[in-house]
Order: sequence, then structure tokens, then C-alpha cells
Amino acid sequence: MKRKRVPLEAPPRAPRKATSIVIVNTGDGKGKSTAAFGTTLRAVARGWKVAVVQFVKSDRWKVGERDVATKLGVEWRTMGDGFTWDSRDLERSAAVAREAWRAAAHLISAGEHRLVVLDEITYPINWGWIPASEVVSVIKSRPAVVNVIITGRDAPDEVVDIADTVTEMRNRKHAFDSGIKAIRGIDF
Amino acid sequence: MKRKRVPLEAPPRAPRKATSIVIVNTGDGKGKSTAAFGTTLRAVARGWKVAVVQFVKSDRWKVGERDVATKLGVEWRTMGDGFTWDSRDLERSAAVAREAWRAAAHLISAGEHRLVVLDEITYPINWGWIPASEVVSVIKSRPAVVNVIITGRDAPDEVVDIADTVTEMRNRKHAFDSGIKAIRGIDF
Repeated sequence: MKRKRVPLEAPPRAPRKATSIVIVNTGDGKGKSTAAFGTTLRAVARGWKVAVVQFVKSDRWKVGERDVATKLGVEWRTMGDGFTWDSRDLERSAAVAREAWRAAAHLISAGEHRLVVLDEITYPINWGWIPASEVVSVIKSRPAVVNVIITGRDAPDEVVDIADTVTEMRNRKHAFDSGIKAIRGIDF
Repeated sequence: MKRKRVPLEAPPRAPRKATSIVIVNTGDGKGKSTAAFGTTLRAVARGWKVAVVQFVKSDRWKVGERDVATKLGVEWRTMGDGFTWDSRDLERSAAVAREAWRAAAHLISAGEHRLVVLDEITYPINWGWIPASEVVSVIKSRPAVVNVIITGRDAPDEVVDIADTVTEMRNRKHAFDSGIKAIRGIDF
């Protein structure tokens, strides 16, 4: 093990106070949505109104985080049409995604929520179902107090460009790849 | 924008059900601790007993996630001595970290919690304050039902080796680097 030096000097302080920021959690690793949910915890702790819009998960799959977040007062909308390989009608799935985007765009523009999470929105963007340019323009013209978090693999460059913080969650090892099923209480 | 193909085939299913796993969130980007907190949301949603031990943050810094998690029944222990550059006595800071590790090791071995989060433990390990070999041996000999999440930069190889899932949160862009202060409600 290479021992590291104990830092004895504080990092420089950031001078500017932003009214809100745009965060992107992307990459092929775990933790993109989970980190967004962790942030909603912080936001509700400060008394913020928070909304989560899920663009892939459908109402048919009940996840634990949804129950807890709803109990904490988070407005949680599962508006996707589920996994695409389960879809019997991709045109319909695309329309469902566009409807979710209309709802999310309305939430962002209304300015009543201090944090809006667009969970897994990169997928319908990358499939050509939601225009990246629209997402970019709604976010750029949002009310000053609205923070936005975008999650999903392969975040489009246009979206990365307007973000303040972009983290790439890289998969170095994944239990799934060694044959381990998703665990209730950990993965959902 | 490069459009991606809509996946029409489900990924293969994982065959094995693990009683518990070890997760490492490392890297220089945002989201390591935040994703761990998001997972505690899932765990409490399923009725699990959950403990979080923080190895750097001290009781002097009140963070929002702590209030909410405590309200949800998470056992949250802020056991660090704060930022090293604020420390007036590094020997004492090291002793504080070792005490936190004793408490955490006890929590893991007792097996009463289904999830134990060792938040920012990689720092005191890398500074030579807590032996990596001890952390590895306590985790390896844990009761079968105890899941462990480790967060912090530069996770030591020994720890990565025993983990089932390792995500490297890579900093592609950070609001701080463009001079934006941490935001209450988002960053803490």
C-alpha cells in the first residue's frame, strides 16, 4: 500500500455563490440514480420542494427509494414505460417518454421546486425520443433557483456542455458480472 | 448527437443470490458518499437496520443528510476529527480515526445491521492511521447478512480486491473548479 501524505493545507475557497446548478451523473457504473436520490435527501433536509421524474422505470416496478422519498415529501413520478425489451409498442414507449418530458419541463419552468431530478432521461434522448436541444433550452431558461440533476449512461455532449458538475460513474467491478443477482435493499 | 439503438433484448440474468455484498465508491468525482446515502434510503425502505460511520466528518459540522437519515432510523455516527488541515494534533486525529474503526468493526461483526457504511474510511487508511489488513479481515469474516459500503478517494487495492462492486466516480467537470461554492441542500 502506498501511504499518502496527510493534507495540512486547506484547498482554496470558491468565491462565487450560484443560485442553482446543473449536475450530470453518467457512465456505465453503479451510483448514478443512487447519488441523485442521496442528494434529494439533502434537499428535503433543508426544507426544499423536490421532484423526481423517472423516464424509464414504470409504475409496475415498485422500488424502495420511492416509498421513503414520498414519505419525506418528495414528488416522485415514475413516468417511463419500463424496459424497452418488454415493450410491445416502441412508438407508444416513445410517446410515454415525451409525455414524461412535457411534465418534467413544466416542473422545471414553474420554479416551484428547488430540485428536479430527471432520472434516466439520457436513454430516451439517445434513442431519439426526446430532442436534446429541447432539454438544453428548458434547462438554460429555467428559473434561477431550480437545480437540475440528470442521470443515465452516455449523457449527450449538449447536456454535458450546460452542466456545472459532471461525474462519470465508471464500472471497475460489478457484482452482476460475477453472477450475483440484484439485492432488494441495496439495488432497489 | 449519435443516436443509439433501442435495446430489444433483455440482458442475461444473474444466477446467484448473494446474502450480502461489499461495495466500494471511489474516485475523485462527486457522488461517492451521496450514492451510499441513497443506498441507505433503499435499505431502510426494506426495513433493514442501517449504520453509517463517518471517518472524517466531525460532530462540529451538521449536514442535512444526517438529520433525515436519523429521522428514518439510521444509526448515524459522525466519528471523525474534521479536516486534517484544521487539526491541531494529528496524533489525536489518528487516535480518533482508530476509535471510529473500533466502533465500526464492532458494528460489522455484531451482525445486527444489514448495512454498514464506512464513509470516507479510505483517507485514514491511506494516511496509515487504520491498517487496511484489519479492515479487510473484519469485512471478510463478517456475518453473512451484513452488506458493507466503503467510500473515499484512492481505495486501497486490498479493499478493492475483496469488493463485489467497485465504482470509480470520475470528475469530468466540477462546479467548484469554476469557482462555485458548495450549495446547502445539494452538497451538504
